[in-house]
Amino acid sequence: MRKLQIKTRHRQHFVDITQQLNSLIAQSGVSSGLCCLFCPHTTAAVTLNENWDPDVQRDMALALDSIAPQRSDFQHAEGNSPAHVKTSLMSSDHTLFIEGGRLLLGRWQGVYLAEFDGPRNRQLYIKIITE
Amino acid sequence: MRKLQIKTRHRQHFVDITQQLNSLIAQSGVSSGLCCLFCPHTTAAVTLNENWDPDVQRDMALALDSIAPQRSDFQHAEGNSPAHVKTSLMSSDHTLFIEGGRLLLGRWQGVYLAEFDGPRNRQLYIKIITE
Amino acid sequence: MRKLQIKTRHRQHFVDITQQLNSLIAQSGVSSGLCCLFCPHTTAAVTLNENWDPDVQRDMALALDSIAPQRSDFQHAEGNSPAHVKTSLMSSDHTLFIEGGRLLLGRWQGVYLAEFDGPRNRQLYIKIITE
Repeated sequence: MRKLQIKTRHRQHFVDITQQLNSLIAQSGVSSGLCCLFCPHTTAAVTLNENWDPDVQRDMALALDSIAPQRSDFQHAEGNSPAHVKTSLMSSDHTLFIEGGRLLLGRWQGVYLAEFDGPRNRQLYIKIITE
Repeated sequence: MRKLQIKTRHRQHFVDITQQLNSLIAQSGVSSGLCCLFCPHTTAAVTLNENWDPDVQRDMALALDSIAPQRSDFQHAEGNSPAHVKTSLMSSDHTLFIEGGRLLLGRWQGVYLAEFDGPRNRQLYIKIITE
Repeated sequence: MRKLQIKTRHRQHFVDITQQLNSLIAQSGVSSGLCCLFCPHTTAAVTLNENWDPDVQRDMALALDSIAPQRSDFQHAEGNSPAHVKTSLMSSDHTLFIEGGRLLLGRWQGVYLAEFDGPRNRQLYIKIITE
């Protein structure tokens, strides 16, 4: 198993980790298989989306703040319940494909560590499985 | 790796791909294992839900339009930010079970390509893994 | 393949199944690998989140009721469309990591069967895959 250390810089921050994942895959020597991702946090997740226009991530952040807003009737003492909700919506685990020694992604896709309660130092666990 | 070509016919459209997946599994000869799905688009995803009453898909579409509505403060120039948000909510990747040479699904479950910015021609990548 | 039987006790109920999964993994003898989960229902799903403060699950339930509320224009005759929507948002399938003969989770993470139309008797399918 491999690990990435990811520094997030804002309360809500989508960090593109596509290149770091491709470096780990290259090191592994696996040309075809699966790249399983697991985010061991409860206020950060992983998601895939467009990595071409940064406005997509900006709009995603706006939308998520409306989907899971802060509420006066939340009781979790840390006050970060919206971040917990967003984490469950985006999912902590994703299974991606490896072909040709790198992630198989669509033309516009990137892989993001999605921070919902930053800035923080986050970890991502990765298993690279050969076919 | 295998591919499905899927033609969607509406702006938002849930296309039942269960039978096409079962055909690919039958061709593979795998009787027990995993069926990993990956959707290489940023405005379409994959989801599982009821395939008995078509009103479930209709209600799902209504609900998603309220969860991720169009907004005047979105900046992504293509104007399809709601479709990007819905894609991250539904997830691009799903790992299903194969038993008895076909998908192991609940009695009411089907697998759907979820189009959020159609109509378009979409692709789905599939890896069938034997146990 | 293994199965868990899970009794849910409320309309919306997050049942912590982490210990039951770890028992199945211990029985399997697998020390390092993947634990694939599949929920064969259309109104219940699986999610990961904090298992320390029960208020997180309470706040999650409040938030999901606002994200996918009942609506007068829903047409699905069973009247449980919000539960179908929540199921697609949380996802029926999750792939977790096994290390040291147990689930590799973050310090605050637990795995939950997320009931959205209970109380009911639910099943969860599990495949434990060795590396």
